Amino acid sequence: MTAIVSPAAAMFQPRLSVEQVEEGVDLAPRFDATGLLTVVTTDADSGDVLMVGVMNADALARTIETREAHYWSRSRQCLWRKGATSGLIQHVVELRIDDDQDAVWLRVRTAGVGANCHVGYRSCFYRCVDLPVDEAVSASSARLVFCEAGKTFDPVAVYGDAPNPTQL
Amino acid sequence: MTAIVSPAAAMFQPRLSVEQVEEGVDLAPRFDATGLLTVVTTDADSGDVLMVGVMNADALARTIETREAHYWSRSRQCLWRKGATSGLIQHVVELRIDDDQDAVWLRVRTAGVGANCHVGYRSCFYRCVDLPVDEAVSASSARLVFCEAGKTFDPVAVYGDAPNPTQL
Repeated sequence: MTAIVSPAAAMFQPRLSVEQVEEGVDLAPRFDATGLLTVVTTDADSGDVLMVGVMNADALARTIETREAHYWSRSRQCLWRKGATSGLIQHVVELRIDDDQDAVWLRVRTAGVGANCHVGYRSCFYRCVDLPVDEAVSASSARLVFCEAGKTFDPVAVYGDAPNPTQL
Repeated sequence: MTAIVSPAAAMFQPRLSVEQVEEGVDLAPRFDATGLLTVVTTDADSGDVLMVGVMNADALARTIETREAHYWSRSRQCLWRKGATSGLIQHVVELRIDDDQDAVWLRVRTAGVGANCHVGYRSCFYRCVDLPVDEAVSASSARLVFCEAGKTFDPVAVYGDAPNPTQL
């Protein structure tokens, strides 16, 4: 009988020194006290930031093995294969890790209509802050401006009456 | 006598509804239980992710007012004007916020030699995971590959003997 070994356990190395973590070739990620690290996902072609999420060890291991983005869903408290409901799978072109190995950058190409945001836009970052041209402009005038021409899909048609993950 | 009002208090709106937060033009950021939100910083020209950090309300307000990136330093537990020590100021070209307003995307142009990482590289994400071409390849072979040609500056010359922020 063969013991079942977690893919994450086999894939990641223990963190032994700052030099190993910053200057080496070992994949030795640092998960926070809740077992998560931050993930930034960008469009491999346009460079736009599509979303920011989190991964636990299992999500990172599955992403590397399958080349499809997996996250940890904080709203649903479960492993989240992006696109499982919507079909908007994120195919990973490149996966980078930062200096202290507590953040991951995914460059992806998204299947289907290419949207990534539950509100219906290509990117979750569909609004800019209207930055003051002059510091003397009152900070109280800070407002958002929409950066995308419109929604790429209708979230009600895709997600139906699933709970909205946004918390106030 | 005029009361001193925090710039953040004047700049941000209260969070009243999901519709307001996701579909509106109010800047109504959501800071976590420790008073922070996640920031992704990219190079405005190349699109490369340079770093991932955090901001408290004061750092976000100062970034908007000055168009220079300010973060909260978790290692030093203080407001951090990026480049205050190194001269590598990040000039903000665009500032976006995500659907539920708990993450910010800065597009910046960095002063000086254009590096952003305390290890000496342009980006903190200077290593890729060598993704398996075939899922059958053992996950235990996961290794990192350096993506930049070399360091852009000598961290010892810039930071001297300041403590390294990387935690094991």
